[in-house]
Amino acid sequence: MSQKTCQQTKTISERIIFDKDLNDKKTLFGGKTLSLLDENAGLASFKFVKGKIATAGYDHVNFWSPITTDKYVKMESFVTGVHNRQVEVFTKIISRDIKTDKPEIAFTSFCTLIVLKSNDKMEIPEIIPETAEEKYLCQGFENRLKQRKAEYLQKSEFLGHLSLN
Amino acid sequence: MSQKTCQQTKTISERIIFDKDLNDKKTLFGGKTLSLLDENAGLASFKFVKGKIATAGYDHVNFWSPITTDKYVKMESFVTGVHNRQVEVFTKIISRDIKTDKPEIAFTSFCTLIVLKSNDKMEIPEIIPETAEEKYLCQGFENRLKQRKAEYLQKSEFLGHLSLN
Amino acid sequence: MSQKTCQQTKTISERIIFDKDLNDKKTLFGGKTLSLLDENAGLASFKFVKGKIATAGYDHVNFWSPITTDKYVKMESFVTGVHNRQVEVFTKIISRDIKTDKPEIAFTSFCTLIVLKSNDKMEIPEIIPETAEEKYLCQGFENRLKQRKAEYLQKSEFLGHLSLN
Amino acid sequence: MSQKTCQQTKTISERIIFDKDLNDKKTLFGGKTLSLLDENAGLASFKFVKGKIATAGYDHVNFWSPITTDKYVKMESFVTGVHNRQVEVFTKIISRDIKTDKPEIAFTSFCTLIVLKSNDKMEIPEIIPETAEEKYLCQGFENRLKQRKAEYLQKSEFLGHLSLN
Amino acid sequence: MSQKTCQQTKTISERIIFDKDLNDKKTLFGGKTLSLLDENAGLASFKFVKGKIATAGYDHVNFWSPITTDKYVKMESFVTGVHNRQVEVFTKIISRDIKTDKPEIAFTSFCTLIVLKSNDKMEIPEIIPETAEEKYLCQGFENRLKQRKAEYLQKSEFLGHLSLN
Amino acid sequence: MSQKTCQQTKTISERIIFDKDLNDKKTLFGGKTLSLLDENAGLASFKFVKGKIATAGYDHVNFWSPITTDKYVKMESFVTGVHNRQVEVFTKIISRDIKTDKPEIAFTSFCTLIVLKSNDKMEIPEIIPETAEEKYLCQGFENRLKQRKAEYLQKSEFLGHLSLN
Repeated sequence: MSQKTCQQTKTISERIIFDKDLNDKKTLFGGKTLSLLDENAGLASFKFVKGKIATAGYDHVNFWSPITTDKYVKMESFVTGVHNRQVEVFTKIISRDIKTDKPEIAFTSFCTLIVLKSNDKMEIPEIIPETAEEKYLCQGFENRLKQRKAEYLQKSEFLGHLSLN
Repeated sequence: MSQKTCQQTKTISERIIFDKDLNDKKTLFGGKTLSLLDENAGLASFKFVKGKIATAGYDHVNFWSPITTDKYVKMESFVTGVHNRQVEVFTKIISRDIKTDKPEIAFTSFCTLIVLKSNDKMEIPEIIPETAEEKYLCQGFENRLKQRKAEYLQKSEFLGHLSLN
Repeated sequence: MSQKTCQQTKTISERIIFDKDLNDKKTLFGGKTLSLLDENAGLASFKFVKGKIATAGYDHVNFWSPITTDKYVKMESFVTGVHNRQVEVFTKIISRDIKTDKPEIAFTSFCTLIVLKSNDKMEIPEIIPETAEEKYLCQGFENRLKQRKAEYLQKSEFLGHLSLN
Repeated sequence: MSQKTCQQTKTISERIIFDKDLNDKKTLFGGKTLSLLDENAGLASFKFVKGKIATAGYDHVNFWSPITTDKYVKMESFVTGVHNRQVEVFTKIISRDIKTDKPEIAFTSFCTLIVLKSNDKMEIPEIIPETAEEKYLCQGFENRLKQRKAEYLQKSEFLGHLSLN
Repeated sequence: MSQKTCQQTKTISERIIFDKDLNDKKTLFGGKTLSLLDENAGLASFKFVKGKIATAGYDHVNFWSPITTDKYVKMESFVTGVHNRQVEVFTKIISRDIKTDKPEIAFTSFCTLIVLKSNDKMEIPEIIPETAEEKYLCQGFENRLKQRKAEYLQKSEFLGHLSLN
Repeated sequence: MSQKTCQQTKTISERIIFDKDLNDKKTLFGGKTLSLLDENAGLASFKFVKGKIATAGYDHVNFWSPITTDKYVKMESFVTGVHNRQVEVFTKIISRDIKTDKPEIAFTSFCTLIVLKSNDKMEIPEIIPETAEEKYLCQGFENRLKQRKAEYLQKSEFLGHLSLN
């Protein structure tokens, strides 16, 4: 079985915050963050598996501190777990004060992506953490996977209660 | 204590899917969905509390079925739980086939928003479900809140393991 | 001949107003309104006829009151008349004050769409108004159609006076 | 009383058509046209009166021929009438085939703008047509103004029939 | 050999400056200018040669004076030189004060485009300057071409020094 | 005098290429590249000097190879020279084939930014190259600066020949 390191899937996007991206609280509009998030996490999964991959869901999506125009941000995504055709990508945003460069974790999330069945013969590699951060995040995968399985078991019950009108 | 019904917070956005919003799988780009989501959920919370509210996080974000250009969508958000200054907003997307009008639940998520402290004297109403769907979703709030509290207790431990470089 | 109610074609889009959508008068940029309008009216016509439809024109487009960031809006479109392959869609924007919820009609317009000839065998249903508002608007169709025919008769004369440089 | 020629208010925007601007009929999305329209007409009115002006409405908005990616377009706006604080701006789009350069009138509209009351002492010039096209369009102003007045008289009746829910 | 005048390739785009297009210095975001630039210069080259053309590079790109919301702008592009399959397009932005109409050159640049080989049998016309400005700019082409050739000779050396990681 | 390494100013943005960003040659629209460029180069200069900085110009802007949807890109900017209040930022785009990961230099440019006079007391650091690539690029600064000075000496003559109409 082939292997890839977290580092080999790492995807980075650094940005200045523009006035046009602010909401009524003068902080970065959540929808803008989520839109960048999906693009960045998607690219990390492309680096991991050469094939069509679709976003299945997000969990543990937390806005830890507001992002304002006196900050600039680095969004960083990398693969943190693999199970069958599921790939988990972790994303964090580090914001830095424009004046002092003081860093802060502003946002984190885990994304689950599915390698599409049309890619069935494609080998999906094992993911290898190297740094302390990567090891911590990959260690938690088992547990997050269990939560997702539990949630998935309730899929039919949950969707069955929703109105289609 | 004042009361509002789920219906009074209901927020709707119907859309055609444009080619420009598609990803490489010819389905609606996830980031577009998430961007619309945050705007729609935010408006539902504005209808509930008259004051500044900030998105704190998302969970149970599931893309249940792909959205393509031969579908049109209705995004619907409403408040499903309140605890102190936390407000939970549920959002679903119903997609419909352009030819047959056959509906499908394409996406669901729960968003947690926080009424900002500057609004401290503001009364936050109780939320009253009326339909079967609303009752089912509001019933589950207690449980989702418990999960979030458990996750929040690990905040320092989690953030402490993340690199700031 | 098949029938559809105005209600069956109703299409809704609710929105918060962002700073980035404002013009130099700090009101919603007209072009933004017109862009949302065309999408919403188009979807109402898709719900009415399953086939390719093209926008032919707009008339009675009125900005009745300015839309500012202390308001949120509901755009609502529905079919209000049918004649041969022409479909008329009415659209209104109701703005509401974020603090008081006081509603106001901010914008109205009538759009004429044409079912494309490639859909010739397609049956175009009759439109059935139910509420007082729908009846009032459908009643006026005859008259608006007459105006449009009069204008259309002058098409060649009008276009003939325009320079092509 | 000061004077300005139509030519002095002329505002031009030439564009290539991108794939991302197309609708499901592979023609330029109407909303894109309308959005450009409002910006271009607005600039023509700025050249005419130095002060705050707001769009009041549109009429005679006609999509005469579809705009596709094998065409490029020239949008041209200029003032064609003035009455008290009302300014009328005409806009046309000439499309040209990329291969043959054959021109066609693809779109026309009339926009009514209002010079805001805060500009009361501001002198509003007289508009002077020079070319045959300008003279034809300015001649028609009287008639279009009469129609608008007639429509405006029905404003209360019309708005009174619309539901605010 | 066929001929075209600079005038026949002239492409114009006039714009109001919106708040959303401003950077932290409250001047037009450079990236917005560059994005409009590439579209406008591209259209000028389309008017000159009927065939696929690709942007090869820019030089002499100068932001001569800041563009703010109390100005409106006219971007003007036209062909200023041809050599084999290379076409040079000059672009300038004239900004005008909204109050006084005082004009200023705010931006200039030269773009080099390449007529793609698939168009080999296509005749590329000679460019004919008529006005003093056109003659001055076309006269300088020889010299700018020489600079570009010198730069191009160092291509391999330059790219060879860049890291691909 | 304080010092900063090129590495300390390095700014990265990785992106997938979307269909909506393509031009008629099915390659990344140049204007999109230039828009991202200005944002990324700007952030590199913010990391170097804490103060207001404005883009003065670009030169040596080369599109070396077309970027298509079967590639993903890494844009990388860093400071490569300082002279008085002028800061030079180099930017390159490395594209990689989605299937084979084969890298290629797709785009390079040099941007000149000016630290605004309002920041006069602000100390501007010295830039310290460390890698072979950084040393090569910083070495060339002297020469590029000379070219820019020569060009700047002709500013009045050049602008004097341009028409303001």
